[in-house]
Amino acid sequence: MTEKHSHFMQLAIEEAKKAAAMGEVPIGAVIVRNGEVIATGYNRREIDKNPLAHAEIMAIENASQVLGGWRLLGCTLYVTLEPCPMCAGAIVQSRIPQLVYGAKDPKAGCVGSLMNLLNDPRFNHQTEVIQGIHQDECSQLLKDFFKRLRKP
Amino acid sequence: MTEKHSHFMQLAIEEAKKAAAMGEVPIGAVIVRNGEVIATGYNRREIDKNPLAHAEIMAIENASQVLGGWRLLGCTLYVTLEPCPMCAGAIVQSRIPQLVYGAKDPKAGCVGSLMNLLNDPRFNHQTEVIQGIHQDECSQLLKDFFKRLRKP
Repeated sequence: MTEKHSHFMQLAIEEAKKAAAMGEVPIGAVIVRNGEVIATGYNRREIDKNPLAHAEIMAIENASQVLGGWRLLGCTLYVTLEPCPMCAGAIVQSRIPQLVYGAKDPKAGCVGSLMNLLNDPRFNHQTEVIQGIHQDECSQLLKDFFKRLRKP
Repeated sequence: MTEKHSHFMQLAIEEAKKAAAMGEVPIGAVIVRNGEVIATGYNRREIDKNPLAHAEIMAIENASQVLGGWRLLGCTLYVTLEPCPMCAGAIVQSRIPQLVYGAKDPKAGCVGSLMNLLNDPRFNHQTEVIQGIHQDECSQLLKDFFKRLRKP
């Protein structure tokens, strides 16, 4: 694990904690360009009453406004959990060249678990993927959240 | 082709024409519930400088605000072109029970062409799909747009 990836994943974990504090499933994301965080996001599906309000989507929308265009060239997306098909598709659409994620999602993950939408040569974009950075911490956040949820 | 599907696909085509008029790739969508259009959307990727601003995403976001929640139960999404992985994933996320689309997208379509993300039993939601409603008209809109674009 490089120090750089560890540092930015920690920031994504901080974003995930914001979601947890609001009663949302704790998933967080940051987008980095030239060594700087240009956008952040956390899951807000319930608060926003919006099925699209996943951490990655919030961060991608944010980053495209910051950069003033829909191509997120030169960007790395850090996210605490393996992206679902929607978010993996959004990574393809925004041409993000690199994804770093923490925990795997065996139920819905589409970047290695159920399939890999980011290395399919049939799409017009592929993304380099690094997995496992702080995966235990990312996973523990989710476990703790669901444990609290199940408490009577 | 039932009259109902034909009628609502015509409305999606009207949405696609709005995109074309703004110089955007002409793709349009409407969401119908209990026989009424509750949301519409058209591709606005360039104008909004937003990689997420596909017709389906605009309509889904709109519908979730109208219904006040992220589950689009009882809804049918009509869209002129076969959804990409992001939009197919958004249909899964919003639990839309029925999709009706016009033209196939052999390059990026993920509801029958390259794969089918809407009937994968590993996801926690599957969607009924009806394809081919006004497909020639939907396809012709796109062909005309790209033909004009290539003109010197």
